[in-house]
Amino acid sequence: MAGSPPPSGSLVTLSNWQDPPYLRWAYLHVRELIPTALISRGAGPVTELPRAERDLDGWTFRVRGERHTVGEMLERTDTDGLLVLHRGRIVTERYDGAMTETTPHLLQSVSKSMTSALTGALVGAGTLRTDGLVTDYVAELRGGSFEGCTVQDLLDMRAGTRFSEAYEDLDADIRISEQVSGWRPRTRPGLPPNLYAYMASLDNQGPHGGPFDYRSILTDVLGWVLERAGGDSFARLYSRYVWSLIGAEQDAEITLDPHGAALQDGGISVTLRDLGRFGLMHLRDGAIGGRQVLPASWVGRVGVPRPDLVEAFDGALTYDGVATPTSHYHDQWWVFDPERGIYGGIGIHGQALVIHSAADAVIVKLSTHAAPLDRDKHELQLAAAIAIGDALEREG
Amino acid sequence: MAGSPPPSGSLVTLSNWQDPPYLRWAYLHVRELIPTALISRGAGPVTELPRAERDLDGWTFRVRGERHTVGEMLERTDTDGLLVLHRGRIVTERYDGAMTETTPHLLQSVSKSMTSALTGALVGAGTLRTDGLVTDYVAELRGGSFEGCTVQDLLDMRAGTRFSEAYEDLDADIRISEQVSGWRPRTRPGLPPNLYAYMASLDNQGPHGGPFDYRSILTDVLGWVLERAGGDSFARLYSRYVWSLIGAEQDAEITLDPHGAALQDGGISVTLRDLGRFGLMHLRDGAIGGRQVLPASWVGRVGVPRPDLVEAFDGALTYDGVATPTSHYHDQWWVFDPERGIYGGIGIHGQALVIHSAADAVIVKLSTHAAPLDRDKHELQLAAAIAIGDALEREG
Repeated sequence: MAGSPPPSGSLVTLSNWQDPPYLRWAYLHVRELIPTALISRGAGPVTELPRAERDLDGWTFRVRGERHTVGEMLERTDTDGLLVLHRGRIVTERYDGAMTETTPHLLQSVSKSMTSALTGALVGAGTLRTDGLVTDYVAELRGGSFEGCTVQDLLDMRAGTRFSEAYEDLDADIRISEQVSGWRPRTRPGLPPNLYAYMASLDNQGPHGGPFDYRSILTDVLGWVLERAGGDSFARLYSRYVWSLIGAEQDAEITLDPHGAALQDGGISVTLRDLGRFGLMHLRDGAIGGRQVLPASWVGRVGVPRPDLVEAFDGALTYDGVATPTSHYHDQWWVFDPERGIYGGIGIHGQALVIHSAADAVIVKLSTHAAPLDRDKHELQLAAAIAIGDALEREG
Repeated sequence: MAGSPPPSGSLVTLSNWQDPPYLRWAYLHVRELIPTALISRGAGPVTELPRAERDLDGWTFRVRGERHTVGEMLERTDTDGLLVLHRGRIVTERYDGAMTETTPHLLQSVSKSMTSALTGALVGAGTLRTDGLVTDYVAELRGGSFEGCTVQDLLDMRAGTRFSEAYEDLDADIRISEQVSGWRPRTRPGLPPNLYAYMASLDNQGPHGGPFDYRSILTDVLGWVLERAGGDSFARLYSRYVWSLIGAEQDAEITLDPHGAALQDGGISVTLRDLGRFGLMHLRDGAIGGRQVLPASWVGRVGVPRPDLVEAFDGALTYDGVATPTSHYHDQWWVFDPERGIYGGIGIHGQALVIHSAADAVIVKLSTHAAPLDRDKHELQLAAAIAIGDALEREG
C-alpha cells in the first residue's frame, strides 16, 4: 500500500487484507492493520549466521512424477522469502517482492509451532504439565466443553472441540473467530467480546483424545493455558522464555484482539532469518548461542516413532515428497518423518518452516499464495524444502 | 492491563484508554490498542549517553510565589519518566510506575515538535519550502479552505482553519477527529473514511496567517505535506531523515488510521532516553553522533526574537516560571525564551520536552495526568524543567 491516501484500488484495510492482491503487502505490515504486542528480542547479542551461499535455483526434485527445479518452485509459489541453513550456515537467503531482511512476515500457522516452544519452555520450568487438564490451568473452562481435555490433546489437535477450519467459507468458525480476534471487521451481532469468551463458548463434536483434526482455535486455548501457567501475557512470556534467548535480530510481534488477547494460532510475525534461528535452535536440541533455551527432551519429542499418533492422524497429510507412512501431528508440529527428524510448521497462504535433522538443515519459505490452501503450491514448496535437505544430506 | 482476560474493571479498550486510570497503562502500550507504523531506528550505532547522575529531588523552584521541590513535583504530576541531560550526560533518569528504559511512551503533542524535525530535514534536502503553499504539495486541497495557506502558517498554528481543540468536549473537533484517526470507536455516522478526507473537509474561521491558535489538525495537514514533498509515508520518511540518524536505542512508532494515515499531531511513541537524544540533537545545532541530521539553520530558527510571532501569540502561554514576554509558537515548538534558546514540546496529560540551550540541558518529563489539560500540573512540571536548567546554567 502506498500513497497518501492510497488509490482506492490499492487500499488495504481490515476488510480485504487477507485477499489477493492485498495480502502481498499486508503480510509484511500486519501491525499497521491490527493492534500488536511486542515480543522483545531483548538486549542480548545476535546469533550470527555465517554464510556459505550457493545458487540452488537449478537443483531438481520430483513431485508426483514431475521434475521441478527450485527456481521454478520459487517462481510458482508467490515467494516472499527463502532461507536455507545448513550446518548453521546460510546456504541461500533470498527475498522477492517487497520483503527485506528486516521485514517481519506474518507466519500464520507456523505461529502454532512457535507456540509449541513456549509450551516446552514452561514444561522445562516446571510450571506446566502436558498431561495436566486444561481446566487445571484455566478456571473459566471448568464445567464446560473442555472438561477432561489435556494440554496434550490441544498440542496434538485431538480435543473434541467442534470448530470448522474451512477457510474458503466466510461463515466457518475460523472466519467468524476472526471477527473476534480483530482480524476482520465485526459484522456478526452477538459475538463474544474477546477470544477468551469465544473459547469458553465452544462445544464439542466428540470426546477429547480422539482422532487428529486440525482446528486452529485449539492453539489459542493452549495459549490461554500458557498465560495462566506462566502468569503473564503471551507476548511477555514468549519474549522471556524464547525470543530474548535465541539471539534474534529483530523483535517479533503478535496480533491482539480488542481486549488484548493474542492470536497464537496464526498472529505472529518475524523476519526470515529469525525464523531460521528458531529452527536452528530446534536442530541443536533446543540450544543456540551457547544457551539451552528449550529442554532437549522437549525438542526430541517430535523425533520418535509414535504409532498411536500415526493412527490418530489417519494419513491426513498426502503431499507427495513430504508425507511418509509415519507422518503425524505432534506438539503443534507436522512430523513428516520422525525417524529422520524431519518436521515443520505450515501456515496458510504458503508459510513453511522445515527442520531437516538428518541433513542438519533448516528451510524457511514465506509466501503469499493467493488462496489460503493451494494444495499444489503447498505440496510443491514443502517437497522442495525436503528435497533440498535430502540433497544437502547426500552431500554430507 | 493484566490478566487473561483482564478483570472488567481494569480492561483497557479503544473506548477508555485515554481516561484515568486506564491511560497509565495505555500510554505505554499504544500499539496494543491501535495499529501503528514502525519508525525504524535502523542498524546504526546507539548514541551513548554518559552518566553523571545526581539526586535532584531536593532542588527547589518557585511557582506563583510558592516554593516547590523537584521531588514534590514528580510526586504530584503522575510521573512516568524524567530525564535530565546536561552537557550530553545523564544527570537524572528516573522511571515511576510501569515505565522502563525500553518502554515507548505516547508523546501526544510532543509529536508535533518531532514532526517539525522532518520538516527541517526536507527543507534541508531541498524538497520543501516553508513559504510554499500547502496546495502546491497536496493537490487534493486545491480549491478548498487551504487555498492560500503556507506551510509556515501550519508550522506556526496560524492557518485560518476552524477546529475546536476543547479536549473536555467529546463533540469538539479534536475528539470527533479521533473517531477518524482510529483513536476512538467510530460512533458518529457520516464521518470521512480517513484523515486525508477529513482534512480536506475542513472549513475556515478566518484568513490564513492570522493569530496563533493551537489546532492539532494543522500538524496532520503538515504531515500530509511532508508525505507528498518526501514521496513516501510519514513513518518511512521519519526513519530515513531523522530516527535512523540520531543513534536511537529503540524503534519509534506512530498510530495509523484504518487507511494507513499517521497521526502526526500526537501519535508518536518513543522511549525516554531516545526523546532525550532527539533533544540533544537540537542542542547541538542539529548534529548528533558526528552527523548533521538537521540543518543548523533550521534548528536556529527558534532561537531568534520574533516580534511578529509574539504579537500573533498574544500571550497565549501564561505558565509562571515558563512564559516570558517574548514567548511564542514557531515551527511546532513552544518558544519560551528565544534569547536564551529555551523552547519545548508539550503534550496533553503531561508530556514535556524542554530544550534549555543556555544551560546546555535537555529535560524530558513523561506523565499520565488524569486530565488532558491540568493547568497546575503542566505549569508545575514545565517550571521545574526550566528551573532545573537554570540551576545547571548557574553552576556553569
